Amino acid sequence: MTPTPTSLAPHVLDRTRQLVEPALKDAVSRLQPQLAAIAEFHFGWADQHGQQLPNGGGKGVRSALAVLSAESVGAPSEVAVPGAVAVELVHNFSLLHDDIIDGDLQRRHRPAVWALFGQDKAIIAGDALHTLAFEVLLGWGFGGENALPPAASAISSSEAAACRTQGVFLASVRLASATAAMISGQICDMSFNDRLDVSLQESLDMEAQKTGALLGYAASVGAVLAEAPPEVVAGLERYGQQLGLAFQAADDLLGIWGNPEVTGKPAGNDLREKKKSLPVAYALAQGTAESAELGELLACETLDESQVERATGLIEQVGGRHWVQQAANDYLQASHDCLESVVLDAQAKAELAGLANFVVARDH
Amino acid sequence: MTPTPTSLAPHVLDRTRQLVEPALKDAVSRLQPQLAAIAEFHFGWADQHGQQLPNGGGKGVRSALAVLSAESVGAPSEVAVPGAVAVELVHNFSLLHDDIIDGDLQRRHRPAVWALFGQDKAIIAGDALHTLAFEVLLGWGFGGENALPPAASAISSSEAAACRTQGVFLASVRLASATAAMISGQICDMSFNDRLDVSLQESLDMEAQKTGALLGYAASVGAVLAEAPPEVVAGLERYGQQLGLAFQAADDLLGIWGNPEVTGKPAGNDLREKKKSLPVAYALAQGTAESAELGELLACETLDESQVERATGLIEQVGGRHWVQQAANDYLQASHDCLESVVLDAQAKAELAGLANFVVARDH
Repeated sequence: MTPTPTSLAPHVLDRTRQLVEPALKDAVSRLQPQLAAIAEFHFGWADQHGQQLPNGGGKGVRSALAVLSAESVGAPSEVAVPGAVAVELVHNFSLLHDDIIDGDLQRRHRPAVWALFGQDKAIIAGDALHTLAFEVLLGWGFGGENALPPAASAISSSEAAACRTQGVFLASVRLASATAAMISGQICDMSFNDRLDVSLQESLDMEAQKTGALLGYAASVGAVLAEAPPEVVAGLERYGQQLGLAFQAADDLLGIWGNPEVTGKPAGNDLREKKKSLPVAYALAQGTAESAELGELLACETLDESQVERATGLIEQVGGRHWVQQAANDYLQASHDCLESVVLDAQAKAELAGLANFVVARDH
Repeated sequence: MTPTPTSLAPHVLDRTRQLVEPALKDAVSRLQPQLAAIAEFHFGWADQHGQQLPNGGGKGVRSALAVLSAESVGAPSEVAVPGAVAVELVHNFSLLHDDIIDGDLQRRHRPAVWALFGQDKAIIAGDALHTLAFEVLLGWGFGGENALPPAASAISSSEAAACRTQGVFLASVRLASATAAMISGQICDMSFNDRLDVSLQESLDMEAQKTGALLGYAASVGAVLAEAPPEVVAGLERYGQQLGLAFQAADDLLGIWGNPEVTGKPAGNDLREKKKSLPVAYALAQGTAESAELGELLACETLDESQVERATGLIEQVGGRHWVQQAANDYLQASHDCLESVVLDAQAKAELAGLANFVVARDH
């Protein structure tokens, strides 16, 4: 398969955001008003005074994956909406809590919620988005008094309504599993900060859980809601998992070598936080003099600028940067291969491939 | 209805704990090992070194309500187990996060998780229990590869297996709604700490959400899983909600007048934290000279011992203690009345009534 140009991706992201965002905003607006205001700030839809912002929001990669996965099995795009909303809510709950845990003051070039509203509010707002994900998804499949009615624009066709209950149930079971995996990955990541003996395999396993599981969910939930055959769902999920590993490898490179003006984080931020990201785990595992010196640096209580610079150089010398660049490419190729392993709609498949290229090639 | 003696309740709690706890422990043991260790400490099943403790765990009121609600509609006790496990997990996730938010150092006469393991671990462990609640409940209704198989001892009869999917789906939708209400109540409670104009109705509404919603869920989930008629489910839910208000009124009295040796919290703790609990909201709303003086005290940055004592006296003088005692009795009576409003198994009904009396009469 010839990799699709990444230039398609911004169009795809725009199109799918227009489909999903009204339902996501509708769900958030049903929260208790203080919780809604915090969430709307976090999503970039409003400033801290509740003033609406015109061009806020993340890229919506998870929404796009969800919608394309419905289209790839020939289902109407709208079928994916509850899954897309749920996965965005889980992703954003994890960002709210991870920013506290990592002590990150900024998110998407704006203050992190905990830094602006306080830790307590960030904890409870994260909890609210976590529950809301299940409320939206389960409510979609249930016509009772507790159902959150979908935004009128989001579900129109009766075809979409027909595949509700069974697909929603399965999508909910899978959401719980993927969220649990993400949380397991996060606790591993946290515990790695205090360790120097993290193996490359442990680092890869952690990233598969922390990032891969939810992207695998996003890339298959539209097909699940469309009640596609299990082998097709599995192929799409593997595509998302591989994409997640490619994305995380690229993100790990940015965490050390990224341009602060573009990433919005200080250069070498991951080293300062002693994250055992892939380049670090690779470098530590090489058993060279550079590996040993890197280990000594990372054993310090805190690292000053010159130590961060030295550690960065050591990782590069021992081949960590090159290896992770290669790994990102390999995972990207593997994600393309997964798309070829099952029968999918040609247009949606090309858009999924292009989205993978775009996500991995991003510089922020 | 003659109130049942509370002396039945310890036996009921023992019996239902024996049914539910193996499945709860089984679910927790499936967490990532570090998360499992934190949860096992929190539940009182192990010390911080992972050493098993013989007589740990809370009273298991929510488990008991869930099991009795199945029995009250003539279903096998085992039908309630996934709902009982899920409601205990949600309750305990909220305790982990609330202790951080309230700055409470102790829980059940032991260190709070955040105080022992750190805030970050308490945040992520709470998140893990939150997701696990949905994973357990949804997995029970789903025979696929992702299902968490119930502990062998918990579900034995084929009768129990027969009412799985539809009941589980509805129980999951309701769990999301009840959890969302609990979180809304918590953010209201937090915001009240900074306000002096909290009305009695606002305080009651907050307690209905923070405590009543999840107890209403617990008291009906067994009937939901047994696919009992909606009006019976609604009657049991109202019983649990009224019980929740009675419990919270009693808890508010303990928060001001409780014996520290019994409650495990300093006397007047709620006043020091400026909680707008029912006695405070009632006293502030009376418009007397005492109300005004209480308002001035609660406007101070911090309260010293003599100020806490003075505030306590003012609330009593203006009738706050008496009014809340009466309210607790009224809600307790209302919970009994709800049990009479629907047709229920006589034995289970008597046990539900006795449990309500026990919970409200508790002194710790």
